[in-house]
Amino acid sequence: MTHTPTLAPATPAFIDALRARLPAPVFREATPGYFEEPRGRWQGQGVVLAPGNTEDVAEIVRACAAARVPVVPYGGGTGLVGGQIAPGGPTPVILSLERMRAVRGIYPAENVIVVEAGAILQDIHTAAAEVDRLFPLSIAAKGSARIGGNLATNAGGVNVLRYGNARDLCLGLEAVMPDGRIWNGLKRLRKDNTGYDLRNLLIGSEGTLGVITAAALKLSPRPMGEGTALMVVEGPRAALDLLALARARIGEGVSAFEIMHRAGLEFLAETLPDIRQPFAKMPEWFVLIDVGLASGLDPAAVLEGLFAEAFEAGLVSDGMIAQSETQRHQFWEVREQIPEANRRIGSISSHDISLPMSLIPDFIVQANAVIAGIGAFRINCFGHLGDGNLHYNVFPMPGRGRADHVAERDEIKRAVHDLVHEMGGSVSAEHGIGRLKVEDLERYGDPVKLDAMRAIKTALDPLGIMNPGAVLRG
Amino acid sequence: MTHTPTLAPATPAFIDALRARLPAPVFREATPGYFEEPRGRWQGQGVVLAPGNTEDVAEIVRACAAARVPVVPYGGGTGLVGGQIAPGGPTPVILSLERMRAVRGIYPAENVIVVEAGAILQDIHTAAAEVDRLFPLSIAAKGSARIGGNLATNAGGVNVLRYGNARDLCLGLEAVMPDGRIWNGLKRLRKDNTGYDLRNLLIGSEGTLGVITAAALKLSPRPMGEGTALMVVEGPRAALDLLALARARIGEGVSAFEIMHRAGLEFLAETLPDIRQPFAKMPEWFVLIDVGLASGLDPAAVLEGLFAEAFEAGLVSDGMIAQSETQRHQFWEVREQIPEANRRIGSISSHDISLPMSLIPDFIVQANAVIAGIGAFRINCFGHLGDGNLHYNVFPMPGRGRADHVAERDEIKRAVHDLVHEMGGSVSAEHGIGRLKVEDLERYGDPVKLDAMRAIKTALDPLGIMNPGAVLRG
Repeated sequence: MTHTPTLAPATPAFIDALRARLPAPVFREATPGYFEEPRGRWQGQGVVLAPGNTEDVAEIVRACAAARVPVVPYGGGTGLVGGQIAPGGPTPVILSLERMRAVRGIYPAENVIVVEAGAILQDIHTAAAEVDRLFPLSIAAKGSARIGGNLATNAGGVNVLRYGNARDLCLGLEAVMPDGRIWNGLKRLRKDNTGYDLRNLLIGSEGTLGVITAAALKLSPRPMGEGTALMVVEGPRAALDLLALARARIGEGVSAFEIMHRAGLEFLAETLPDIRQPFAKMPEWFVLIDVGLASGLDPAAVLEGLFAEAFEAGLVSDGMIAQSETQRHQFWEVREQIPEANRRIGSISSHDISLPMSLIPDFIVQANAVIAGIGAFRINCFGHLGDGNLHYNVFPMPGRGRADHVAERDEIKRAVHDLVHEMGGSVSAEHGIGRLKVEDLERYGDPVKLDAMRAIKTALDPLGIMNPGAVLRG
Repeated sequence: MTHTPTLAPATPAFIDALRARLPAPVFREATPGYFEEPRGRWQGQGVVLAPGNTEDVAEIVRACAAARVPVVPYGGGTGLVGGQIAPGGPTPVILSLERMRAVRGIYPAENVIVVEAGAILQDIHTAAAEVDRLFPLSIAAKGSARIGGNLATNAGGVNVLRYGNARDLCLGLEAVMPDGRIWNGLKRLRKDNTGYDLRNLLIGSEGTLGVITAAALKLSPRPMGEGTALMVVEGPRAALDLLALARARIGEGVSAFEIMHRAGLEFLAETLPDIRQPFAKMPEWFVLIDVGLASGLDPAAVLEGLFAEAFEAGLVSDGMIAQSETQRHQFWEVREQIPEANRRIGSISSHDISLPMSLIPDFIVQANAVIAGIGAFRINCFGHLGDGNLHYNVFPMPGRGRADHVAERDEIKRAVHDLVHEMGGSVSAEHGIGRLKVEDLERYGDPVKLDAMRAIKTALDPLGIMNPGAVLRG
């Protein structure tokens, strides 16, 4: 087990001592936003500090280490598993990166951008577009999520199929380690085999091993032409066959492959009636395919060719190919607004899971049967099929609310996660562990890996000040 | 510094005790091949054990831990930095994975193959091709290198530009940790954010944190059409501009982009006269471009279109596009035989370096000037320009041998590495640290990262039995 030294609160005296060493803008008003999280599960606490540069981050962490004050790194506050919230324990420093937003350099010839950790994801998209490049990481919260948090949680999103997760888009990091020293690993190199992969260790460690302060990120050329289609499939197995066909014909040109169920369309109709419904008659299952192609290929023609071959093979029964950017946007809006529709319906239990791709059809059948055995529910299962990542979410029947199902909540979650685990899947595909899934990690995680994680945590953060209680039990 | 407990030799009594617990085939004759390495720099020693399954690997490591006997994991023996050789210290166990070659499973619908660590890289290529898939990791030693070693050293090769390094091709690992416990991390998942990234920590750790016993690897669809061109460029800057143009037009379809210098052609003419010289008049600089394209694109036409636009822009002055598979093979043979020609000439000092891509032209000019300041030498600079990875190798003038330059060897290496370091590059792009570059890592490595590495090493291998002296000083 992790050795847990006694932590101390960030007292007024502790903060006053910092005031003498740091400029005034570091000291922020602790407005309620810092202590809320998107799903409203926890209420946080803490003293908010927002350093303006890496040296000041280091100064704060050194002071916290000396006084054994907990440090909770804070990006855009959009995390869904409570990694950014300290609901109990000694008052921590909430270390917000919000003032460190600079683009330190952009290198179009290298396809590299170097940004500070507080840069908002969408601002990085804009900076890349200004030099005719793409930064492909894209998640629903891109307008407020900050890249430091995206990296700390190894964010996923809709373009993972083509471009990988956040870790795959990072070439180098600058970070403040738990002892307050600065690791300058901000390399702009595609190949660098000089020692252990500290970069990937920090990425996905959710602020428990250090504070990411800047990153060198990979950019990509922008595809020459883009296109989007919706295609109706009989079910998840046909969808997987369609994906294999698409990748055989189009290769890396398949940028996104998202599966959706009729429930998503029904939820949109129920809660967001202004969203344009794409189908005259709601299909049981359908996919959104997005392509970004090289010179010499017409996206609509490529999607038509795919549809024709898939129709011939009996994989698709209907479909539509966007004829304009407006229509592409409408197709994507269906996918992107489903989480908002879910929020308005109010899920009893949501599951961010991944599975070996070929087992997904079986999983859905079995999971639906398990849930039906617990009671009468609506299920909205959708997500990044191309990555084997489903959002398998369970909702009350019409006329009932989540408050009616408090008693079944844990049973549902446990049943879904047990099945995922049995099938070799992950109970946190892209959201991370945070505080929400610490018990799941203990239950389903490999014990040898867990022991290695605890040993690493103790080795790098012997005082246990970095985001205590996240990922590993404090 | 790393705490170094006293290690003990693998005595006859130690091995005899193992004989009682392990089947006879585990105990191998210690033929000289196990103690040689490709560059002939070291002579190794040890007792060779070749377990047939993961349980037996664990049994051996547990016994070594109990007796504090060093363990040197051994794959294909093709590493270029001595990571697989123990030239001194107490007699180690050479833990060869050669008997663990099984394909445990292949999942075309998932684009995944699960193999044991002793599988030879080329055999994995063959297994993938049999299900119409590609395993893209490819290095010169593919006929004898084993995937466990490829992963332990995070191998690179000619397809990194498109498909990434070895770590980018690995979804999951099974490994025996230094205490002899088995980590079952053999997930077939594209997204899995459940805790620290132990997979990437083991990948590239060169056997110092555990023994990789099996891996789940990513496969790719095979491109519908492939093509290769040689194009003459004025120099490295034009080559970089050509690469940017190629990627803008062709996207991920650019599979490889290799730069070569006239010296490479001269060395081939001198040492391997049977290799067909591609150019009537040897150019100063040229590139090999390989493309693998989606349905609907003709590789030759795509390369012609690229050449036409590049010629118009003044980036290329001459070129040829392979008109057959035979010609593709001939073009590639030029690139692939350059290391053999180098070996026959006999380098004074070889450098496997990477740089921020936009700095490569400046680096070559400055490095050539630095070398000229030391004396009269021939330089063969070539490599994976698309990855910013150069092999910058220094040779004697005609009529002289490497033995004539022993005195200058360290000066040359130091000068090249100092310049690489000043320019933000890496002194080991793809070969790793092994035993050859331990001092380089100490000199050029970030001290905060080095301390973190030492802390991790001590945390996971407190007895220091795993490949002592590799990567970190024992």
